[in-house]
Amino acid sequence: MSSYTTFQRSFETFLQEHPFHFEPRSLYEPIDYIMGMGGKRLRPVLALWGCQLFRDDYEKALPVAMAIEVFHNFSLLHDDIMDEAPLRRGKPTVHSLYGINTGILSGDAMLIYAYDFLRQIEEPSAISALLEAFNRVAIEVCEGQQYDIDFENRQDVSIPEYLRMIELKTAALIGGSLEMGAIAAGAAPGAAGSLAAFGRNIGLAFQLQDDNLDTFGDPAKVGKKTGGDIARNKKTFLILKAMELAGPETRGQLEKLMTTVPEDEAGKIEAVTAILNSLNIKTFAEEAMEGFLQRAFEHLAAVPAPGNRKEGLRQLALGLMQRQA
Amino acid sequence: MSSYTTFQRSFETFLQEHPFHFEPRSLYEPIDYIMGMGGKRLRPVLALWGCQLFRDDYEKALPVAMAIEVFHNFSLLHDDIMDEAPLRRGKPTVHSLYGINTGILSGDAMLIYAYDFLRQIEEPSAISALLEAFNRVAIEVCEGQQYDIDFENRQDVSIPEYLRMIELKTAALIGGSLEMGAIAAGAAPGAAGSLAAFGRNIGLAFQLQDDNLDTFGDPAKVGKKTGGDIARNKKTFLILKAMELAGPETRGQLEKLMTTVPEDEAGKIEAVTAILNSLNIKTFAEEAMEGFLQRAFEHLAAVPAPGNRKEGLRQLALGLMQRQA
Repeated sequence: MSSYTTFQRSFETFLQEHPFHFEPRSLYEPIDYIMGMGGKRLRPVLALWGCQLFRDDYEKALPVAMAIEVFHNFSLLHDDIMDEAPLRRGKPTVHSLYGINTGILSGDAMLIYAYDFLRQIEEPSAISALLEAFNRVAIEVCEGQQYDIDFENRQDVSIPEYLRMIELKTAALIGGSLEMGAIAAGAAPGAAGSLAAFGRNIGLAFQLQDDNLDTFGDPAKVGKKTGGDIARNKKTFLILKAMELAGPETRGQLEKLMTTVPEDEAGKIEAVTAILNSLNIKTFAEEAMEGFLQRAFEHLAAVPAPGNRKEGLRQLALGLMQRQA
Repeated sequence: MSSYTTFQRSFETFLQEHPFHFEPRSLYEPIDYIMGMGGKRLRPVLALWGCQLFRDDYEKALPVAMAIEVFHNFSLLHDDIMDEAPLRRGKPTVHSLYGINTGILSGDAMLIYAYDFLRQIEEPSAISALLEAFNRVAIEVCEGQQYDIDFENRQDVSIPEYLRMIELKTAALIGGSLEMGAIAAGAAPGAAGSLAAFGRNIGLAFQLQDDNLDTFGDPAKVGKKTGGDIARNKKTFLILKAMELAGPETRGQLEKLMTTVPEDEAGKIEAVTAILNSLNIKTFAEEAMEGFLQRAFEHLAAVPAPGNRKEGLRQLALGLMQRQA
């Protein structure tokens, strides 16, 4: 059994042993619903992995893994309300099933429960460091979401600003999951910090690959239609890079295309993709991804943990990058 | 200068020294706005008071007081979204000024910052106990809010259910404020628990008095129109007690009145108030308040702190009860 599968099963067992079977059901049923939706459980797996780098009994990080997964699902729940998203993982979102008010309140309760799982960590000495890391990352996720909202109404977003936004919104929690697992293991601040930097750069590469796949992926392999970001006028790395490289005329075309919602969605996606191809944008995105991966592995090399355990994490990162490509 | 004023000023100074001057402003400006709205600062004052019962340097509880006030304002912010309230303390609510999405997200950030203030408490040994108390109370507030929402669509709410709802939604945090102040002072669990029970009963009495004033208060003294609860069909203690005591005919009238929103609001308020008066409901509410006050003082008597310091708290409770009556 792979390490990923081992950690994932261990987490799923913990999750099943901790259902939100409290009253009133109207508050807790939506929490059981979203926590039971499944998914890869990437963040809790990383938390357990971050612990296991430093000690065998990785199970001691299970409450931390749970805190992180509850927090992640809280942020998905509230984001779905803000995005008015009807579906997540092919199922109705919480607010479309239970209403917006319950969605807000159940999300609030989840955030509090995340802290309550954090509190269950055995060493009292670790709680302070865990709280510091958790708060820092949680705030970053909120700030990233706010930048994402703000960028929708701005036409002058720069690539560094975009990268900072996805770092806050997505990559910080990937890094934080590994970091908090390491803290739960009793790792030194420097070691936990290097691991966090590894995860943060992996998260950035991961998000750039998401951007790439959304436009250039094979729908059969990615499992969803391509062009969604273009249709919704999302200013991803691809669009921002194209804006930077294009001549005035092409740039004007792209700006016009990316501010309208035409009836002919397929035609718009085709036109934008053609511009991206003419500027060789896919290669630029891949180079940027490579850069983040490189930096990630440099940080991993600095983590004072057994080489064979770190190798597993390196393989995981490479595997994540090869998914659906 | 009274103790209340001393604690309030001390808190206001701390608040001014900790503005939310972070980026992006679109996330933090709404937080500065709601935190600057003022109010009596009852909960942070109680936290400082709970600390000062056991030691002179009550300032050590300032981060706890701040955590509680930030949490309280977070819950007001999200409640206002759920209630679609346009105004709070005579000013536009956050979501009506900045939009619902920012309201949700700024509230989320506030909840995280509340934990970050909690973390700033000096003794690491106190953090675990503070987290336990804070999480317990914060979850109770969410549960109380959910019961309040659920009760809107139920016609069979009992008085014990109503009292439990207001205990969770309002009284738990009043008790928790005193309790967490005591924990920050290093008080023993039993002492902090008795103080929490005092506050919880005061909170219950306080809410029943709110119910009473909303219907029977002198508008000139209360500072707002009376009858708001009746107009909005709120099933407060007064209505539930009347339902319990009324004969079938009056009960039928009351049920009908309290499920409709007629054009003649003033006529409806008058009719319901007449029924309440005919059943002597005000006296029943006052007796219930008296009962909670009595129990509160019994718990206060059990708190192992100097009598003169406890006397200040007793006077505060009596003062709160006499407001606007």
